[in-house]
Amino acid sequence: MPVNAVGREIPETIAGKPVRPFQGAFATVPQGHRVGGPLKTTRPGAGKLAPSLEEAIRRSGLADGMTISFHHCFRDGDKLVLQVVDTCARLGIKDLRLFATALFPCHEPLVRHIQDGVLTRIEGSMNGPIGAYVSQGGKLKEPPVLRSHGGRWRAVACGEVKIDVAFIAASEADPYGNANGIHGPNACGPISFSVIDSWCADHVVVVTDNLVPYPAVPPTIEQGYVDQVAVVDQVGDPAGIVTGTLRVTRSPTELRIAKLAVDAVAAAGLIREGMSFQAGAGGTSLAAQEILARKMAEAGVHAAFAIGGTTKYLVAMLKEGLVRTILDGQAFDGEAVESLRTNPQHQPITPGFYADYNSLGCATYMLDFAFLGGTEVDLAFNVNVNTHSDGQLLHGIGGHQDVAAGARVTVITMPTLRGRVPMIRDQVTTVTTPGEVIDLVVTERGIAVNPRRPDLAEDLRRAGLPVRTLEEMKAAAERLVGKGKSPIFGDEIVGVIQWRDGTVIDVVRKVEDWA
Amino acid sequence: MPVNAVGREIPETIAGKPVRPFQGAFATVPQGHRVGGPLKTTRPGAGKLAPSLEEAIRRSGLADGMTISFHHCFRDGDKLVLQVVDTCARLGIKDLRLFATALFPCHEPLVRHIQDGVLTRIEGSMNGPIGAYVSQGGKLKEPPVLRSHGGRWRAVACGEVKIDVAFIAASEADPYGNANGIHGPNACGPISFSVIDSWCADHVVVVTDNLVPYPAVPPTIEQGYVDQVAVVDQVGDPAGIVTGTLRVTRSPTELRIAKLAVDAVAAAGLIREGMSFQAGAGGTSLAAQEILARKMAEAGVHAAFAIGGTTKYLVAMLKEGLVRTILDGQAFDGEAVESLRTNPQHQPITPGFYADYNSLGCATYMLDFAFLGGTEVDLAFNVNVNTHSDGQLLHGIGGHQDVAAGARVTVITMPTLRGRVPMIRDQVTTVTTPGEVIDLVVTERGIAVNPRRPDLAEDLRRAGLPVRTLEEMKAAAERLVGKGKSPIFGDEIVGVIQWRDGTVIDVVRKVEDWA
Repeated sequence: MPVNAVGREIPETIAGKPVRPFQGAFATVPQGHRVGGPLKTTRPGAGKLAPSLEEAIRRSGLADGMTISFHHCFRDGDKLVLQVVDTCARLGIKDLRLFATALFPCHEPLVRHIQDGVLTRIEGSMNGPIGAYVSQGGKLKEPPVLRSHGGRWRAVACGEVKIDVAFIAASEADPYGNANGIHGPNACGPISFSVIDSWCADHVVVVTDNLVPYPAVPPTIEQGYVDQVAVVDQVGDPAGIVTGTLRVTRSPTELRIAKLAVDAVAAAGLIREGMSFQAGAGGTSLAAQEILARKMAEAGVHAAFAIGGTTKYLVAMLKEGLVRTILDGQAFDGEAVESLRTNPQHQPITPGFYADYNSLGCATYMLDFAFLGGTEVDLAFNVNVNTHSDGQLLHGIGGHQDVAAGARVTVITMPTLRGRVPMIRDQVTTVTTPGEVIDLVVTERGIAVNPRRPDLAEDLRRAGLPVRTLEEMKAAAERLVGKGKSPIFGDEIVGVIQWRDGTVIDVVRKVEDWA
Repeated sequence: MPVNAVGREIPETIAGKPVRPFQGAFATVPQGHRVGGPLKTTRPGAGKLAPSLEEAIRRSGLADGMTISFHHCFRDGDKLVLQVVDTCARLGIKDLRLFATALFPCHEPLVRHIQDGVLTRIEGSMNGPIGAYVSQGGKLKEPPVLRSHGGRWRAVACGEVKIDVAFIAASEADPYGNANGIHGPNACGPISFSVIDSWCADHVVVVTDNLVPYPAVPPTIEQGYVDQVAVVDQVGDPAGIVTGTLRVTRSPTELRIAKLAVDAVAAAGLIREGMSFQAGAGGTSLAAQEILARKMAEAGVHAAFAIGGTTKYLVAMLKEGLVRTILDGQAFDGEAVESLRTNPQHQPITPGFYADYNSLGCATYMLDFAFLGGTEVDLAFNVNVNTHSDGQLLHGIGGHQDVAAGARVTVITMPTLRGRVPMIRDQVTTVTTPGEVIDLVVTERGIAVNPRRPDLAEDLRRAGLPVRTLEEMKAAAERLVGKGKSPIFGDEIVGVIQWRDGTVIDVVRKVEDWA
């Protein structure tokens, strides 16, 4: 079996389709043109309001074997995916490909529809139970394909994935299809993930629980691309966008990691006037951001921009003037949504703007540094964010690949141990992001510098920071807990991990046994 | 020669290309898919700043026979078109097709480049001297093609016009190509005319006189579509966006027309809560808008939205709450630009959103009523905005067709005489907009109601308004000045007038003599 550029065996075809193996972070030169949706027209006075979601589905022409798409901007509060798939099941539609940007624990009831053959394929991130379920093998007709935020935009824009019917949840929409996620009682933040779906799908249905008179502004989704508007009781619960620990960590280990991470970028000279950064929404990242804010204020410097996933912590930096502009692809709390409504320097962006490989440049390419997490890292600096060390496919890629590929200094923050499982491995269980785009790995035991960046090693040593090799930190962790068990994989592929350019960087195989 | 649905003889081919004759305002059913630009990629750190506009042109690969595009958002203050074409001439590039949205009197020096063969084809509106020049015949290799705002967007999006190199003037841009027209010392308003150019052109050059640090927000033009950024001394003079009489008229005739126009829409029941309208920026339209504002305030009603071309008069209505939202495709003064910067209910829109025939609905389709001008109207209610009665091609279409096709009540306001020339003709010199989408013609002598709208005639009579036939008003005018001379046309076609769907509604022929 051919081996790709990170040493993973990748079959030549998967589900009968040819596979392009990963050949390096920037090896692919795209060919051809962007695709567009079908040309349609309408007359003044023609209405779009469907009497019900069920009727909208009927009128869409959705049939067996087709592909339906969704955004995940309500995260664990989404209520649209299930309503649509339940209705499809009731209508007897089957063999669907579910092309959601991401699934969350709230989507567990989809298992039933997989069992019944309503859903036979999934492309998109699976955070939690659906991932765990498909990890068991034999559940889907084709292995699920996981893409980064930028990778999904690219796949639609270049025609790799054709969407038959796009369903777009909106917290505000007008009867002509203009829709956004920043107004209304259930505002969830920008719904710009679905912009490319609206441009390219054969049929587009906006679904809202808050129909307002024309025109709904801003029209994140534009009327000209929308076939139908359907009203339901609730498209999503904004409480669900606050997932995980959206709070600055109090764990001494994580606080130490956060502090080391900020010290590292300071040592690299990146805390300076006009700087730029992305920090995630996990507890360690938020702690790092708080430390960073203090350091910036002390130094009297301002960031030209920061990229969200946005939380109240980043909004506070915007309000204080520490950050001049937020480029925001996703809101993680109500304060972020409120800021999007009112502050013109809080700029919503699409995943294309954020991260498209097939573009003349994206926002992540302009980042000075980024703090990213991971479930595992290996001695080649490859990072896994998709599977746990038990081989279960439990997380999506998010923007991990996109940010790591773009930022001048990509900092992975993670503890060397979670419970009694060591996080630095000889080889990661799954390669999500290749070591070539990772610069620093910061743990509670020190900072490992990728040998590709001797400049950074020099900076960090000069600043007296604890530079360690991954091997050293791995050994220290293993002295406490041993190597940990490793799964033994069978042949069945239960997940395909695309690199952001559409090549396959790894596959997830079914766990057969333990060693 | 075949005759189209408004009775005009249209050749089967023009310049060797097959012509689709106009068959009715909504007869065309588009086929196929929207097109996209070439897929490209880049790496972090790759720069886009060209050392000069000349070098940007060299690097763009622009060559003989190609098509270059521009927006007209600086209107008569534009300084980019000439800089680019002058440079092309200096570089020895010739036989170019100029695909500007519109040309103005400031572009008169282009005549030299037409004479020298640098420009051999023009598609776009020609307001003033260039139109007058090409009207003489024999100047261009192919007759110019004029499209409405919506028609131009459609033509690019469906692949009818392929742009080789798009030049996009921006009053603010960053080195990565994000660009807008609402910030900077020479802010001109939304530059959204060029959004479709950026999506579809083979090569995109943003040209600015105000380079700012990354990121320029809002990114009306997005980095991912931009190949190069070039800096020049001045892209345009915002004083030039204020063209024509951007002042409420004081002419008693025009004031009477304005008052009658508002009385007419009032009689039709259209001054009511949640109403919507578009009024132009001419003196009569502005007067009508002022009268309308007073009537709305008296009635205690609010407009859901109004569409601009936006002036300070419309901005005042937004500030006073008489208008809840402005959908703005073009700014006509500094107050409009300032409002775009600060008021989230002042929403910039693209020509696609505004007016695309090949879409599932555009903003003009949601209009209750619109006040539009015209140079002539005929007994079939056909309106001419392109030529004068002397046959000279002197004006673009703008949004005339798009608005007339969309609004429930389209009101043409015009005097029956201009100088000693009667404006109501047996047949208009050129059909820009077909009578089937015109509802009322308001002159100083009364209001003519299209026989297709007996409901409106009834409303107006009931309100005691002076309903007259076009024949009556025509006869009254001709009693004063006679019929006026008419040009005798030869065979040479000096202009092609497209309907917004891409069919040909009329051609402009060279004037050979006078009758």
